[in-house]
Amino acid sequence: MTTPLRVAVLGAKGRIGAEAARSVEAAPGLELVAALDREDTLESLTEAGAQVAVDLTHPDAVLGNLEYCIAHGIHAVVGTTGWTDERLASVRGWLAASPSTGVLIAPNFSIGAVLTMRFAQQAARFFESAEVIELHHNNKADAPSGTATRTAQLIAEARAEAALPPQDDPTTHGLPGARGADVDGVPVHSVRLRGLLAHQEVLFGGTGETLTIRHDSLHHSSFMPGILLGVRSVADAPGLTFGLENFLFAGE
Amino acid sequence: MTTPLRVAVLGAKGRIGAEAARSVEAAPGLELVAALDREDTLESLTEAGAQVAVDLTHPDAVLGNLEYCIAHGIHAVVGTTGWTDERLASVRGWLAASPSTGVLIAPNFSIGAVLTMRFAQQAARFFESAEVIELHHNNKADAPSGTATRTAQLIAEARAEAALPPQDDPTTHGLPGARGADVDGVPVHSVRLRGLLAHQEVLFGGTGETLTIRHDSLHHSSFMPGILLGVRSVADAPGLTFGLENFLFAGE
Amino acid sequence: MTTPLRVAVLGAKGRIGAEAARSVEAAPGLELVAALDREDTLESLTEAGAQVAVDLTHPDAVLGNLEYCIAHGIHAVVGTTGWTDERLASVRGWLAASPSTGVLIAPNFSIGAVLTMRFAQQAARFFESAEVIELHHNNKADAPSGTATRTAQLIAEARAEAALPPQDDPTTHGLPGARGADVDGVPVHSVRLRGLLAHQEVLFGGTGETLTIRHDSLHHSSFMPGILLGVRSVADAPGLTFGLENFLFAGE
Amino acid sequence: MTTPLRVAVLGAKGRIGAEAARSVEAAPGLELVAALDREDTLESLTEAGAQVAVDLTHPDAVLGNLEYCIAHGIHAVVGTTGWTDERLASVRGWLAASPSTGVLIAPNFSIGAVLTMRFAQQAARFFESAEVIELHHNNKADAPSGTATRTAQLIAEARAEAALPPQDDPTTHGLPGARGADVDGVPVHSVRLRGLLAHQEVLFGGTGETLTIRHDSLHHSSFMPGILLGVRSVADAPGLTFGLENFLFAGE
Repeated sequence: MTTPLRVAVLGAKGRIGAEAARSVEAAPGLELVAALDREDTLESLTEAGAQVAVDLTHPDAVLGNLEYCIAHGIHAVVGTTGWTDERLASVRGWLAASPSTGVLIAPNFSIGAVLTMRFAQQAARFFESAEVIELHHNNKADAPSGTATRTAQLIAEARAEAALPPQDDPTTHGLPGARGADVDGVPVHSVRLRGLLAHQEVLFGGTGETLTIRHDSLHHSSFMPGILLGVRSVADAPGLTFGLENFLFAGE
Repeated sequence: MTTPLRVAVLGAKGRIGAEAARSVEAAPGLELVAALDREDTLESLTEAGAQVAVDLTHPDAVLGNLEYCIAHGIHAVVGTTGWTDERLASVRGWLAASPSTGVLIAPNFSIGAVLTMRFAQQAARFFESAEVIELHHNNKADAPSGTATRTAQLIAEARAEAALPPQDDPTTHGLPGARGADVDGVPVHSVRLRGLLAHQEVLFGGTGETLTIRHDSLHHSSFMPGILLGVRSVADAPGLTFGLENFLFAGE
Repeated sequence: MTTPLRVAVLGAKGRIGAEAARSVEAAPGLELVAALDREDTLESLTEAGAQVAVDLTHPDAVLGNLEYCIAHGIHAVVGTTGWTDERLASVRGWLAASPSTGVLIAPNFSIGAVLTMRFAQQAARFFESAEVIELHHNNKADAPSGTATRTAQLIAEARAEAALPPQDDPTTHGLPGARGADVDGVPVHSVRLRGLLAHQEVLFGGTGETLTIRHDSLHHSSFMPGILLGVRSVADAPGLTFGLENFLFAGE
Repeated sequence: MTTPLRVAVLGAKGRIGAEAARSVEAAPGLELVAALDREDTLESLTEAGAQVAVDLTHPDAVLGNLEYCIAHGIHAVVGTTGWTDERLASVRGWLAASPSTGVLIAPNFSIGAVLTMRFAQQAARFFESAEVIELHHNNKADAPSGTATRTAQLIAEARAEAALPPQDDPTTHGLPGARGADVDGVPVHSVRLRGLLAHQEVLFGGTGETLTIRHDSLHHSSFMPGILLGVRSVADAPGLTFGLENFLFAGE
């Protein structure tokens, strides 16, 4: 029998953090040794003998948390947002001094969302037309969503690489906004609807056919499988890894 | 055995007109007695003994055609576009002088499109959120489509009638256009994609659920059942009828 | 200011019952005066002065509950399942002795589901083809779902009424099950997928076009607006009402 | 300026063949030098100096055509169906004697269909549940479609390779057929609807999320880009290539 991996969750009283703590507890081969919230000290991590820390806190807290973890050789899986080149450089600096420690930072832990982006990227060069529709609950403050913007950028890059011509907009008379937001030449449409959670559709069109890749996130538990995959993989990936896709397609 | 109804098609060399002529020929109970194009004289209609004329010509020609038909007691089913209140008033004037003649003018002969609008109208008052996505081939010059604009207006009217509050847009930071065109407070999004023909999705959202009504027009033959229904019904509807829905739901 | 309506919830510790109790508490014009569970006596209803009781209990308990409510002039809104003609006859008998009391029994309180069935029924006679796909989480024991079966029956009835010919199955060689279950001549397909909740798609096809009506239930709170509508309407509908649609389209 | 590639089409009076001939004529860098039908002799190919032949004929004719082409060093792109291991062995035998000649045989020339299968294969190991829905016009004789069966097999293989457990069917009481056809443990559902052409949806479900890959073929011209890609690539791929995917992802 293998000794279970000792895992801590930081931000364990938040909605996603609490779900992560429960998921770690329930996962075979993992042991939840600490569930920290704002008032807890980072020393609890070392006292508990944590091998991997899952950070689901706040942009204000995450850098301090990571500095401590890396200094103590605790691997980290980070879902907290707000990353800039400068902040990533700090993390890389700390990791240089602790070369066997691994940190995974991922803007999206949903496997379905990551696959959607990857497939969109792979399909883009084969189709004359590409547009993105993202649909979210009616409390979302940003439009388009970060995932949709990123997806459109990946499509635009793949089109450019394949030397596809730009998409001509045929509209000669229309209402402002009808053709969506322009993200690097790819139209992105944002629907806000009561009852929805987080959904995205990538549409490609060519001669006589269309290809649609749709991701539906129906519950915030959709992040859990990705977090658990990160927890299980991060110790074998020293240094900084950005994006869950690096672990998803590791063997390819 | 019933005598077949004698039908003429005007604009019979156009794509839709040619299809209409074939559909009339193939339809039980109908006989195609004349298929006119630009160079033909309207006298051919009376010479052929047409009882119903299907006009699929051009805004420049349709008024002359209708004046002739009505004057000779030939009922008409009209798919030609470009109607204004003034033009409709002319038709009503001619009909006043020929009270047993019927004219059906319809902006859309697709039964699926008409049902979509009707269901959207019926559903609107039950849902907090409503948006429209229309998707067309990438040669379409107007955005949103006329059908989508009309659908959004019908939804807005139904919401107002039910005293629903306006839809708040939650967006605080976004790209211009992301949230679509505003048609009477209902967001409308226009997708233009190679490979598509004409498609429309009406989305409603309420507590914990969504309702979607989607119409896909995959071939221009989708107008034929509506045209044939018009041909069969127009003689029993003296005066001007505007909109196929009046014949679709006649018995309700 | 109007006096709030005094509402009791029976089965208030179940998942749906608890949500219903919260919804009643939050709803303007309603007051939650009792939240009963198995161990509570029905006398609490009269003691609390309940005017309307919402029954979300169990087929074993509901008849007793209704007998008591009706005898005491308490209107009832019932989401509990398991109704047979015999059981409904009992309820009608009790109501005969209490003619001003109203009881609403509804197999489905989701407004989206009820609208889907109604629109399917209205659309059916216009299309040559009709099929139903229902998609649920992978713990559902019955296939097809009750709602899908009912929807298919309504479509079959509407087709028969319009004298549409039966749908020919073109399959000459195939695998067993590929073409779904046969419900009165309408194929019904049942998808079971982890991550889903309750979803249904009704597909109609005619010349060159299709019409799709899709209902997505993403959270069990989707029953709440229908329950609240029932609570607000039942006092004005003495006797037994079966099906939420009777209250939804009351004014039409 | 490059000399255009000299292309012949066999089966040029069939619907797909005629479209292929037009597409070759219109394509930059390609020249249509022969368009053969049943009554034409294969000698026309050599007389016309064809470098690549596109075979869109019939299982009865294709073997003779390929034997002639390979013997004369004419590369071939084959959309004709009916391949067995034995027939492929014959082609390989002829190619062994003409080692610089290339033959591409593809069961599906739609790029969207090939991408759908590939993405399904890549996604399968990440999701607990997988099902396939294919939707076709109501004249299709086989159910499920060949593409859907192949897609389900690829999913089943990927699941087995990743050691995923079999999908448990939760159904304890149901109607026969509701849960679709069983293709290696993956349920496949076949919808037949007037108005449709050829459509396929692959559904994956995991914790809190679903991923859907949908391919819509709206016109038979959807095969043309794949055929042209084959024509342009086959001369650089001596020997037998089976499946368009080998050319689509050549550089990966």
